[in-house]
Amino acid sequence: MSTTELLPNFLGGKWQSGSGAGTPLFDPVTGAELVRVDATGLDLAGGFAFAREQGGAALRALTYKQRGALLGEVLKVLQAQRDAYYDIATANSGTVKNDSAVDIDGGLFTLGVYARMGETLGDKHYLPDGEAARLGKDPLFQSQHILTPTRGVALFINAFNFPAWGLWEKAAPALLSGVPVIIKPATATAWLTQRMVRDVVDAGILPAGALSVVCGSSAGLLDQLQPFDVVSFTGSADTAAVIRSHPAVTQRSVRVNIEADSVNSALLLPGEAAGSESFDLLAKEVAREMTVKSGQKCTAIRRVFVPEGVYAAAAQAISARLAKTTVGNPRNDAVRMGALVSRTQLNAVREGLDYLKAQTEVLHDGATHALVDADAASCCLGPTLLGTRNAAGSDASDRVHDTEVFGPVATLVAYRDLGHALQLVRRGQGSLVCSLYGSDAQALAKAATELADSHGRVHIISPDVAALHTGHGNVMPQSLHGGPGRAGGGEELGGARALNFYHRRAAIQASTTVLAQLGA
Amino acid sequence: MSTTELLPNFLGGKWQSGSGAGTPLFDPVTGAELVRVDATGLDLAGGFAFAREQGGAALRALTYKQRGALLGEVLKVLQAQRDAYYDIATANSGTVKNDSAVDIDGGLFTLGVYARMGETLGDKHYLPDGEAARLGKDPLFQSQHILTPTRGVALFINAFNFPAWGLWEKAAPALLSGVPVIIKPATATAWLTQRMVRDVVDAGILPAGALSVVCGSSAGLLDQLQPFDVVSFTGSADTAAVIRSHPAVTQRSVRVNIEADSVNSALLLPGEAAGSESFDLLAKEVAREMTVKSGQKCTAIRRVFVPEGVYAAAAQAISARLAKTTVGNPRNDAVRMGALVSRTQLNAVREGLDYLKAQTEVLHDGATHALVDADAASCCLGPTLLGTRNAAGSDASDRVHDTEVFGPVATLVAYRDLGHALQLVRRGQGSLVCSLYGSDAQALAKAATELADSHGRVHIISPDVAALHTGHGNVMPQSLHGGPGRAGGGEELGGARALNFYHRRAAIQASTTVLAQLGA
Repeated sequence: MSTTELLPNFLGGKWQSGSGAGTPLFDPVTGAELVRVDATGLDLAGGFAFAREQGGAALRALTYKQRGALLGEVLKVLQAQRDAYYDIATANSGTVKNDSAVDIDGGLFTLGVYARMGETLGDKHYLPDGEAARLGKDPLFQSQHILTPTRGVALFINAFNFPAWGLWEKAAPALLSGVPVIIKPATATAWLTQRMVRDVVDAGILPAGALSVVCGSSAGLLDQLQPFDVVSFTGSADTAAVIRSHPAVTQRSVRVNIEADSVNSALLLPGEAAGSESFDLLAKEVAREMTVKSGQKCTAIRRVFVPEGVYAAAAQAISARLAKTTVGNPRNDAVRMGALVSRTQLNAVREGLDYLKAQTEVLHDGATHALVDADAASCCLGPTLLGTRNAAGSDASDRVHDTEVFGPVATLVAYRDLGHALQLVRRGQGSLVCSLYGSDAQALAKAATELADSHGRVHIISPDVAALHTGHGNVMPQSLHGGPGRAGGGEELGGARALNFYHRRAAIQASTTVLAQLGA
Repeated sequence: MSTTELLPNFLGGKWQSGSGAGTPLFDPVTGAELVRVDATGLDLAGGFAFAREQGGAALRALTYKQRGALLGEVLKVLQAQRDAYYDIATANSGTVKNDSAVDIDGGLFTLGVYARMGETLGDKHYLPDGEAARLGKDPLFQSQHILTPTRGVALFINAFNFPAWGLWEKAAPALLSGVPVIIKPATATAWLTQRMVRDVVDAGILPAGALSVVCGSSAGLLDQLQPFDVVSFTGSADTAAVIRSHPAVTQRSVRVNIEADSVNSALLLPGEAAGSESFDLLAKEVAREMTVKSGQKCTAIRRVFVPEGVYAAAAQAISARLAKTTVGNPRNDAVRMGALVSRTQLNAVREGLDYLKAQTEVLHDGATHALVDADAASCCLGPTLLGTRNAAGSDASDRVHDTEVFGPVATLVAYRDLGHALQLVRRGQGSLVCSLYGSDAQALAKAATELADSHGRVHIISPDVAALHTGHGNVMPQSLHGGPGRAGGGEELGGARALNFYHRRAAIQASTTVLAQLGA
């Protein structure tokens, strides 16, 4: 058997292979080794300095409009290679075409939104922030806030589940802001990220140093961070704590964005009967969220809250949908749900299931699904719905609120009344998203504002938008992505809000004669 | 000698004294013991829960307008007690009346700004954030961002130099936002903070749990923080690192605002001759900044950059102003500059001076000032201007850029050209404020935008605003207060921007029929 390709890293304006043996990436369905990655022995200090100095200066010399135009060129390059990306996703992520699209086309769509935003922001080098404010009775001396690009690098330490979207949802706002990017993809699925960066680098669109990729271990990356750099991490709460405790953050004030665990919820409002439109919309969305990307979305529904009177009906309706889900090799057109991304993830999901089962009943057992074109050695696993009628706040039901099983698993929970439901949702201790299902606009709006402080996004599915809504778990670039507390406290996307992370705010206090020159 | 009063803490809705012997507070001029503080044995968990639950719920039940009105009532209570506060400041901070005013009247002014802001924000319970955005071609499904008050407490760990302003510049935006406050003042000057809280509590204006004060050790306070709490710290970089490393922050995503060390600068632009208006404005502002509150302002000018051709003239002009500064007991009307706040601070300033002197020359020696109504045992110290013509980037001159001597000390630094000057300013690694002096509006605006990313505020003093500008070191509530990198990366004030820290942003994705109910 021949050795697989060792993917080179792009750092310091050149392609460089690690000096180690490399870590292999696998096909989670067939178990085949695909490629290897390695970052051993790279000159990280030189690479970061190159990005910070060469890349940063070159990007800042351009205007927002010019940088947006470059992103538009990047988009064209990526669109031309879509088929290759789908092939990599099938092989390395084990996803069916529709699930690969969430990552690949979702990433390209997001990139396109920020490319077009450059036109709106215009030929400027920095952004005004609000209006000028008088600093006294005489109007001559005023304060004008502006946002200028930070003069550092943006380091992204990304998660395995979105090698394409995770790259572009972060890189697009950073590059549009004029901040160079160094991306460290999760090893398990680093191939697609590396390939996209390779295509963009080969096309020669971006200035030298603007976009770098390091695959393999993240060892030493944080040590390179300087006060004006920023770091954005998506992954586990444990790794998040390590990043937050690093001297770069604690001593050098490096700005951090974290997206960590999230035990997201779906909530059917009181008064919606079994079989009502809202009830059916909930069942449909829950089944969809559990199975898209095999539930490996940080935004996926993990907890489903329904009035206790419809618990049994909801269990039946969701289970019936899950039962129809064909699981197996994504290369078979009959398959609707592919594999988990790796053996490690499969084991973690199984452990999580066992942990939750101690406090719940099994309403639909994923183990009953026959695998299509895949065997027990693959990382395929059917969707499992758990449930509990007893989540009244007793310690016996804590686990469902505290445990994110990162796979096709959700738990149905019965609630007594709206107050109880809101209290149970809040026991997630801060989540990325909660979806609400109901037909009373006023009740939906009120519940949304009650839950807003503990969620980055509240997604409301009422019958009038049944065919229009964008999905509980789909992250739209127009809306904030992030959440407080357990979810990490970060903020990404949200349209132009995404640029804030890469800019520094300053108040310019001056004579209006001087302030008038700011626009020049 | 009788024992001094042990100041009680206000926590959990009641006054409680610590069970320890107490830490004494002193008069830095006379050395007299004034009062004692102690937090030993307090039920912190109960106190934080009371604030979070009782205080938070009561504040959130009010609208912004109603909370603003309460702040207006608080302001009246404080205004009625101004004389008492000045007496405490004189005794405990050793400040002359003008310097006490920066703290006391500055705090009341800031409180008043946020009290009036309640009227503007209106009878709402949450704030819209931008306009709704379509999430598809059909305009029925849209995303509207809103800001809702975080459901936690705001813990303030404050610095010794602003016991009054430091309380209100943080508490006013927090309370206006609907978030209860627990303040832990620096021990050395905790008396004034405690007294102000006492007066407000006694007046019975705020809901129970809205405002608490803990004086003495901060031990155990951070352990109480939960995911939706926030903590704001002003003080040393070392303590900031400890706070950032605490599990509340690293594991529970508690939001943190840090204002730490800052080696602020003043920069006379090239082409401004000795004796020009801009030159004189620089000399005047530098002397003022060095002596106001004995240089114990986090925003004070520490580095003064002038073209090498006017170095000698600037040394002379600033020194001449410093020489006129009468130093000593603030109770003597002839005295313009009082004491450092404590023996600890006096020693730290002397050590810092020695550290800087190894790389600089002494242009004006504070030791030559005769003390008025104070002796060598007091904490009084004259202002010292150091200088260096050799700050060309050699290691030999590193200290001036890296060392914040928190007293009446600044260093004059010669630069070759504007590029060199900007590079030297940036060696502060992020500061709260930089002031620019010149007569060319375009050059001033350009320099300001070049420096904006590494400063929270750029203050421009041109001859047309000589009599109008608000001062390099004065923090105006309309403008951002904070700075990146060494300055801690925090953001305070900035008008309504101050409320962001106490709010959570969420995107509400819904039918426009539902979104229309958000305003209801």
